[in-house]
Amino acid sequence: MKKDAKVLIIMGSDSDLSVMSGAASLLEEFGVTYEMTVASAHRTPALVHKHITNAVLNGVKVFLAGAGGAAHLAGVVASFTALPVIGIPVKSKSLDGLDSLLSMVQMPPGIPVATVGIDSAKNAGILAVQILAISDKNLAKKLSAYKEKMATEVKAKGEKLSKIGYKKYLEK
Amino acid sequence: MKKDAKVLIIMGSDSDLSVMSGAASLLEEFGVTYEMTVASAHRTPALVHKHITNAVLNGVKVFLAGAGGAAHLAGVVASFTALPVIGIPVKSKSLDGLDSLLSMVQMPPGIPVATVGIDSAKNAGILAVQILAISDKNLAKKLSAYKEKMATEVKAKGEKLSKIGYKKYLEK
Amino acid sequence: MKKDAKVLIIMGSDSDLSVMSGAASLLEEFGVTYEMTVASAHRTPALVHKHITNAVLNGVKVFLAGAGGAAHLAGVVASFTALPVIGIPVKSKSLDGLDSLLSMVQMPPGIPVATVGIDSAKNAGILAVQILAISDKNLAKKLSAYKEKMATEVKAKGEKLSKIGYKKYLEK
Amino acid sequence: MKKDAKVLIIMGSDSDLSVMSGAASLLEEFGVTYEMTVASAHRTPALVHKHITNAVLNGVKVFLAGAGGAAHLAGVVASFTALPVIGIPVKSKSLDGLDSLLSMVQMPPGIPVATVGIDSAKNAGILAVQILAISDKNLAKKLSAYKEKMATEVKAKGEKLSKIGYKKYLEK
Amino acid sequence: MKKDAKVLIIMGSDSDLSVMSGAASLLEEFGVTYEMTVASAHRTPALVHKHITNAVLNGVKVFLAGAGGAAHLAGVVASFTALPVIGIPVKSKSLDGLDSLLSMVQMPPGIPVATVGIDSAKNAGILAVQILAISDKNLAKKLSAYKEKMATEVKAKGEKLSKIGYKKYLEK
Amino acid sequence: MKKDAKVLIIMGSDSDLSVMSGAASLLEEFGVTYEMTVASAHRTPALVHKHITNAVLNGVKVFLAGAGGAAHLAGVVASFTALPVIGIPVKSKSLDGLDSLLSMVQMPPGIPVATVGIDSAKNAGILAVQILAISDKNLAKKLSAYKEKMATEVKAKGEKLSKIGYKKYLEK
Amino acid sequence: MKKDAKVLIIMGSDSDLSVMSGAASLLEEFGVTYEMTVASAHRTPALVHKHITNAVLNGVKVFLAGAGGAAHLAGVVASFTALPVIGIPVKSKSLDGLDSLLSMVQMPPGIPVATVGIDSAKNAGILAVQILAISDKNLAKKLSAYKEKMATEVKAKGEKLSKIGYKKYLEK
Amino acid sequence: MKKDAKVLIIMGSDSDLSVMSGAASLLEEFGVTYEMTVASAHRTPALVHKHITNAVLNGVKVFLAGAGGAAHLAGVVASFTALPVIGIPVKSKSLDGLDSLLSMVQMPPGIPVATVGIDSAKNAGILAVQILAISDKNLAKKLSAYKEKMATEVKAKGEKLSKIGYKKYLEK
Repeated sequence: MKKDAKVLIIMGSDSDLSVMSGAASLLEEFGVTYEMTVASAHRTPALVHKHITNAVLNGVKVFLAGAGGAAHLAGVVASFTALPVIGIPVKSKSLDGLDSLLSMVQMPPGIPVATVGIDSAKNAGILAVQILAISDKNLAKKLSAYKEKMATEVKAKGEKLSKIGYKKYLEK
Repeated sequence: MKKDAKVLIIMGSDSDLSVMSGAASLLEEFGVTYEMTVASAHRTPALVHKHITNAVLNGVKVFLAGAGGAAHLAGVVASFTALPVIGIPVKSKSLDGLDSLLSMVQMPPGIPVATVGIDSAKNAGILAVQILAISDKNLAKKLSAYKEKMATEVKAKGEKLSKIGYKKYLEK
Repeated sequence: MKKDAKVLIIMGSDSDLSVMSGAASLLEEFGVTYEMTVASAHRTPALVHKHITNAVLNGVKVFLAGAGGAAHLAGVVASFTALPVIGIPVKSKSLDGLDSLLSMVQMPPGIPVATVGIDSAKNAGILAVQILAISDKNLAKKLSAYKEKMATEVKAKGEKLSKIGYKKYLEK
Repeated sequence: MKKDAKVLIIMGSDSDLSVMSGAASLLEEFGVTYEMTVASAHRTPALVHKHITNAVLNGVKVFLAGAGGAAHLAGVVASFTALPVIGIPVKSKSLDGLDSLLSMVQMPPGIPVATVGIDSAKNAGILAVQILAISDKNLAKKLSAYKEKMATEVKAKGEKLSKIGYKKYLEK
Repeated sequence: MKKDAKVLIIMGSDSDLSVMSGAASLLEEFGVTYEMTVASAHRTPALVHKHITNAVLNGVKVFLAGAGGAAHLAGVVASFTALPVIGIPVKSKSLDGLDSLLSMVQMPPGIPVATVGIDSAKNAGILAVQILAISDKNLAKKLSAYKEKMATEVKAKGEKLSKIGYKKYLEK
Repeated sequence: MKKDAKVLIIMGSDSDLSVMSGAASLLEEFGVTYEMTVASAHRTPALVHKHITNAVLNGVKVFLAGAGGAAHLAGVVASFTALPVIGIPVKSKSLDGLDSLLSMVQMPPGIPVATVGIDSAKNAGILAVQILAISDKNLAKKLSAYKEKMATEVKAKGEKLSKIGYKKYLEK
Repeated sequence: MKKDAKVLIIMGSDSDLSVMSGAASLLEEFGVTYEMTVASAHRTPALVHKHITNAVLNGVKVFLAGAGGAAHLAGVVASFTALPVIGIPVKSKSLDGLDSLLSMVQMPPGIPVATVGIDSAKNAGILAVQILAISDKNLAKKLSAYKEKMATEVKAKGEKLSKIGYKKYLEK
Repeated sequence: MKKDAKVLIIMGSDSDLSVMSGAASLLEEFGVTYEMTVASAHRTPALVHKHITNAVLNGVKVFLAGAGGAAHLAGVVASFTALPVIGIPVKSKSLDGLDSLLSMVQMPPGIPVATVGIDSAKNAGILAVQILAISDKNLAKKLSAYKEKMATEVKAKGEKLSKIGYKKYLEK
């Protein structure tokens, strides 16, 4: 465990990594330190417990958990800590992500999981930054800048489309 | 823990009891000893672990786990034992049981949950008896008798309907 | 706007209030100050904007938004602020809450909504407390105590059920 | 903004353009002037507001809004104007378009969105023409001709199939 | 057929009337004349055809069609006219309205149905008014006033809730 | 088995009878002789086999099978005969009939089940009459009359609604 | 229209032909004469009416109608005739066939459509043969032979798998 | 039938074999003898009956049944025996496996099917081993070792990811 990690990114299988890497790269973009690992709620329950306990001791503030199918990982993480847990439902081979979403978001009273959209690891990263930014003015500034940059990019696309028309736009 | 319990019935909330009692009464009907308790995968993960460990030590052979919504309990039980785990998806207040079913049945490779229909605690009980009956000839005989009795009852209903017609049948 | 509100609870219609009051009472239980209002993303877009802007100026740290059907409110709130927005999908008269859930959780890249389960306003409140507790040791302690209390209650129910059996338990 | 545009086509992301271009080409076919741009309800709420306000001032009569996932754009457009808003649910990467459809069509009382089928931008264009044709006899004539042409084409296909048989038809 | 009806409200069964009456009362509120009848796409195809033909001859400008289950009525109406057809999916006894919605909105290329939310007859009425208001300044004014009134009502509710708190609000 | 029964109505449980009786009364209305019984594909597979075999020997021409949940009965009937089998998916206690429908209609190549809507036993009866009417001119005439009567009834309702208005119509 | 066609196969678009040809080839296999055409319920309602009327006059006994999305064709055919109508829901580009299925099977009381599985044109063909075979002993014999042949083929596959094992079986 | 087979793997079509082979290879890994065949509940009901009867006589203890669409095979197997039946819903060409799952798991009272996830033949194999291991200490030991090996593999992946970072991990 990195000593100064603020976020622990955990996923149920390394097959989730291509999705979950989106959260890591977003955190890097914001300069937020993180630790990232694989641990399965079902195949390695003790390892999950150990990771969460260590993470809390090392000062981690927010958890990001991604899993697919009967996606229990985020709920299991939330069972071990009162820190915020963000869940990323990863689309599995059948049911188009509906199973992952429902098994993550429909948590019982007392143990919430802050669920984002299917495969939306990047948004999970932004949510983690938003949570940390409440007590970190520097991060809050970066978030504002990020939001503005997004708006500028969208606006530029809109102007370009309006100017050159859809036919030329689609050619590129 | 009862000393000679062969089955542990565990549910995530006592609001599941009116459904889960169907499993208990079925086991009683077959003379299968059982223990029954409430423990939440999310609110009491350590308690679930303790129950499973104790149950295994006390000779429990089959687990029945019922839960609703993001119904992780059966999967969490299965993470702690290599004994068969039967899952009963309990219908929750929204989504008509689909969330409970998907979050119970769609387990990852390596950790199966033997899932029965939504709210089908009685069938979960029968499945437990079927599993125990593999090495218990007496139970196997009872199962055959049970199956025959069911068939007889259905047959009687069919004959009655055929005889008195649907109008009289529905009056009763 | 209350001067010291840390949380703004906003809902799309006063028909959502019986659900959303669960968030308010949870925050009261933790001594977290909040403001609560009705504003529709579709009928009063300017009012939503005004509320969010005022709230940010007044020091609100977390938003809770509840809505049903094409439940856009949480996303619209998130479009106006980089602070964390927690969304509560409220079950509407058809489709059993699936529409509310999907239209809240499936946000585009860049603008997350931390979605909780359908009608789970209480969990939204807990999540808000968890987020605030990152920089408030007193709240963190209360959360630990809350978690322990929940575990104790579940454990007591389990022991009671194990002791008196399901028949007596269900009578009460 | 083109001075004489009768329709504003707006989409949440330029990734929606390959779908939304179907609306533009249909309008061109009918000689209906339009403006087309990108603006995100969540990333650029102010830009959406500005576009709608300008469009109304410039005499736009109908809005076409396409978006996917938590597809709020059409609803947000409708919150800013009492002119008709046609929504095109664009299929996103998961859930096969169900999320886009439900988050667009299930609008609350008072703010309708005239929703067409998933990815049906062409039909959205036709609907816009139908609306404009109520007070434009020339357009109405073109619509009748268009409808007849469609019928003729279908009839020709039917006759060809009836004549040459399915084997030859499928070869081509 | 009323001589000056601008809107024809048609429904597949008189069991849809309690829902569809919402469209009629909305039109009355705006002073828009309408005709209202029952005709089934499946039981009375010729009658539907006759109604649409007559309506077009009598100057009807917009059609409102409500039906449930395999809700073909709106599509069948649209097959007979190039005027705008607004579809209201009426919730039937099973599947919670999903069948009605999908069979109404997923129209093939060339024949759009402007679909509103499940059971949202009132919104269908508003959409009809919006369409008529494009060439009727008086109606457009009424729509603006209607929109403002809605906003005022929501704002008043928000202020009341903020002032008296949720407990008193819910008592009433 | 009645000697001259043309149709066998079979259902998986007598809890399906209140739905399935709709098929019987329809057949009575048309003077089509039928036999009606209960037999479960799962609890009494041999009985189902026996009923089908007997029915075929006795000259039954069409089978009507109703069941809910994992509704296998119609498929099992179809496995025993090459006569037409009409399936009625009966709504069960969860999933709002979707399970019954999908498990009845999605038959593999070679063994069709003619599936009607959820709980639509009356329509199953009509379909049986339509099939028998192909070689029975008298039945064909009755069907035409039935269709005309339906049309007349719908037309009368439409005229009444048009005449007295929705307010008076709903009062009654 | 072929003079002696017993079955009319009709589809909403020639894009359905690759699916619907399965019905034609099945009918050919049984020596059942058929006519096959394209006619859209929405783009060519009059053509559909004409085809059905002609078909009835020419002695067609069964209709097969295939369509996708808001798949109204089968219902519209059924509105014009009291002969049996078999519906084939064709999978469209979104929603994986669910829209096609629901809009075909959920018909209102009085007008059944005998619906088969999604894209199951071959089964629709078999069902048509089953219906015709009621009054055609030769066809009935062919059906029995067909059923036996299927069984023989499945049995041979089972024996082969049992004999050579899955590894060799999968190699081929 | 192999003389000492403990498990019978049966599937409805050889198109299910690529999925179902996962169960066979798992059983081989554990040294559990099995027989494997193809038999369709609908095309060869007698063959299914014969296989089950033979299997029971030959000492088979657990059945594994895989099928897709209207997946009746597992239920039909369960109708013929009181031994445990494990069902594997195989994803079919439409509906993404939902039809297969619901038609397998939603069994009526009295006849359970122990259902695993969609296409999860490997987990079905493990469940069979778990059931047999109740009365076979050697198998139980192998299961514990298997569970430990899985945990070790997951742990190694987690450590590797933590050490080399996601970028290098994804390169490989």
